[in-house]
Amino acid sequence: MRMYDLIMKKRNGGVLSDEEIRFMVKGFTAGEIPDYQMSAMMMAVYFQGMNEDETLSLTMEMAKSGDMLDLSDIKGIKTDKHSTGGVGDKTSLALAPMVASLGVPVAKMSGRGLGHTGGTIDKLESFKGFSTEISEEQFKENVNRIGIAIMGQTADLAPADKKLYALRDVTATVDNMSLIASSIMSKKLAAGADAIVLDVKTGSGAFMKKEEDSFALAREMVRIGTGAGRSTMAIVSDMDQPLGFAVGNALEVREAIDTLNGRGPKDFEELCLTLGSYMTLAAGKASSVEEARQMLVSCIADGRAVNKLAEFVEAQGGDKDMVYHPERLPKAPIIEEIQSPCDGYVQRIVCDEIGICSLILGGGRETKESSIDLSVGLVLHKKVGDAVRKGESLATIHANDREKLEAAKSRFLAAYTINDMPVTKKPLIKGIVNK
Amino acid sequence: MRMYDLIMKKRNGGVLSDEEIRFMVKGFTAGEIPDYQMSAMMMAVYFQGMNEDETLSLTMEMAKSGDMLDLSDIKGIKTDKHSTGGVGDKTSLALAPMVASLGVPVAKMSGRGLGHTGGTIDKLESFKGFSTEISEEQFKENVNRIGIAIMGQTADLAPADKKLYALRDVTATVDNMSLIASSIMSKKLAAGADAIVLDVKTGSGAFMKKEEDSFALAREMVRIGTGAGRSTMAIVSDMDQPLGFAVGNALEVREAIDTLNGRGPKDFEELCLTLGSYMTLAAGKASSVEEARQMLVSCIADGRAVNKLAEFVEAQGGDKDMVYHPERLPKAPIIEEIQSPCDGYVQRIVCDEIGICSLILGGGRETKESSIDLSVGLVLHKKVGDAVRKGESLATIHANDREKLEAAKSRFLAAYTINDMPVTKKPLIKGIVNK
Repeated sequence: MRMYDLIMKKRNGGVLSDEEIRFMVKGFTAGEIPDYQMSAMMMAVYFQGMNEDETLSLTMEMAKSGDMLDLSDIKGIKTDKHSTGGVGDKTSLALAPMVASLGVPVAKMSGRGLGHTGGTIDKLESFKGFSTEISEEQFKENVNRIGIAIMGQTADLAPADKKLYALRDVTATVDNMSLIASSIMSKKLAAGADAIVLDVKTGSGAFMKKEEDSFALAREMVRIGTGAGRSTMAIVSDMDQPLGFAVGNALEVREAIDTLNGRGPKDFEELCLTLGSYMTLAAGKASSVEEARQMLVSCIADGRAVNKLAEFVEAQGGDKDMVYHPERLPKAPIIEEIQSPCDGYVQRIVCDEIGICSLILGGGRETKESSIDLSVGLVLHKKVGDAVRKGESLATIHANDREKLEAAKSRFLAAYTINDMPVTKKPLIKGIVNK
Repeated sequence: MRMYDLIMKKRNGGVLSDEEIRFMVKGFTAGEIPDYQMSAMMMAVYFQGMNEDETLSLTMEMAKSGDMLDLSDIKGIKTDKHSTGGVGDKTSLALAPMVASLGVPVAKMSGRGLGHTGGTIDKLESFKGFSTEISEEQFKENVNRIGIAIMGQTADLAPADKKLYALRDVTATVDNMSLIASSIMSKKLAAGADAIVLDVKTGSGAFMKKEEDSFALAREMVRIGTGAGRSTMAIVSDMDQPLGFAVGNALEVREAIDTLNGRGPKDFEELCLTLGSYMTLAAGKASSVEEARQMLVSCIADGRAVNKLAEFVEAQGGDKDMVYHPERLPKAPIIEEIQSPCDGYVQRIVCDEIGICSLILGGGRETKESSIDLSVGLVLHKKVGDAVRKGESLATIHANDREKLEAAKSRFLAAYTINDMPVTKKPLIKGIVNK
């Protein structure tokens, strides 16, 4: 078999067999197939597409290219949640303790990642002493004992995807539905969960700007997960403005705690309840989505959810008292309000720009080497559709440096469009995609 | 400027500016733009194409990537001929002395190349003592004195094309009209001729199998040449069967000499007269194609053409007596006839296969390191449309080894389709493409 022939086949609209895709992924991962052939192949795929079989095959081969986690030591149906990402997305922080408090085992590998804020691990480090550097034994033991554990990614998950994504990223071959879906799903399949719940974002702050594309990606991923024998569903949710109010590491932790106490932003709470219901259902802990939702509402109301967070923080060396006293979380030295320059309604928030404000303030990483300040960020007070008066606060800004504060502030104001046309608020959840 | 953005632009159907193409070609040649980006770009070009401006720009940049020959020391309008290649294509050997005998300056750089037979240089070495290793001064002096010189390629012509073609060759991005045309024309432009006459082959033995593709390539190349300020025309000629009768180095030299003596195969003579007429016209030595053709017929009839070949061979150290006594050219030890297995008409000859017979006999190079035997090859006696009786000779085979002879013979017979349906012969020249 020759890579040349496979490129030619795909270029001419042919369908690659399982065997051909295996040859390609193995050869590329081993460095036997050079980058220049793979990038030509990726461009051919961009134009000719891959069918469902090819997409599943590519995903499986990438998943199998490194370690495949074996979570069989953990009792119960392991469920995993994945979000395609956006601004203010602190979902795991609230969702994981919520479902864990209902007996859904949460065994999660997380990363630090680049972006507007840190990853889940960075955010959790807002709790003094908290560490994800635990052994695999400790990890599994914690899940079996208290139902939840999160560890840093130690395993070599889907190295083929890592290598392929890096190549696609510099050759303008990222935006193809099959390639995006297989990239995400290869890592999820390798991570070993029995059930996968996906949160596909849509809108200006999302990777997928158009709703139809987001649904297409959701369908593609559900097809792959199901094809790979994992119970999989997806929701499509709004990312045309930041999720909830808080953007920034410790600020998001606080918002998650508020949500676990029943005092979170309505949109964020709704997202957690929806995703949580499907996770609980998939884990076999409820017999219907409605029942699962009711169970989640109860675990918030009676404190089980927030107590589970405390238990989890403590089990990984963190100061659980901060869960009950979030005022003790890292705090920025400069806190100021950003006032509205006029009366009116918020028409639009350029979502990405709010993320960039957080980055400017020092809350995110631009490169892998950047250090981040957990305390800084923004808490919005006005979102799309809200009425606002001149001088009223649009957001509270948390900064560690006056210059950065001014830069973020002017950028923030430029991201808001306010005028006197009333605006109809749109629902956060756009739809559900099941098999 | 970033290569990433250029790939994206082309992928999305955009048009690259002159400046962008310059950046791309320069960066790629210098090794600053990696192969994996260029191969993705080439695949994007395969799908989105390049318009006339882009194609001209790419050609010019590749031509300028190395040495641009300056032939201004040579008097007169320098014309160059290029063929896209095929089996039995010994055109330069007869054409060059023909037009040189009419005062058209022939200053040609040639190569050895890979293929069924050697290149023009290899073929010329059939003349004992002949050498193309002459200095540039000697080269120019010879052209000014006797009107013709051929030297081995010493200059670094179009290195960008060399590098790009090697990459396209392994990434299934060769067959795009703009890329093929710019590859050929970049070398022609760098080689310095004022006028360019192109022979685009069509049929089973040609790079372009379909006539419409051959015409499209011819038009593209004429557009480029004209756009670059060189007088350019093309003919499209048949390569559905070998050109003339002889395939093999010394055998082709002999056929060229026969043609200069007015005893060549009709199809080959017709090709030389047609190409020669346009070269003579472009060089300003005749006022019409008809006049030029008449001049060529005369120079064959009165011996000027064959005498010019002798003069040329002598000027480059070769034994000119062999021109008048071609029986002294290298001769193979084993000469046998291949007999027809049946009565009938030749329906079809798989052209490439006849080339492979020559390669099997040792007449061509499989790799750059292979040595070739100038004496071996085939001389066909029956071509498409000819009637043949069982036992009559289809071809004479010239070999240096009985085993190779048998292998070539069975391959040869498999390439011929003979049955009792009469066949209408098709014209060699399919059409002329002028600006």
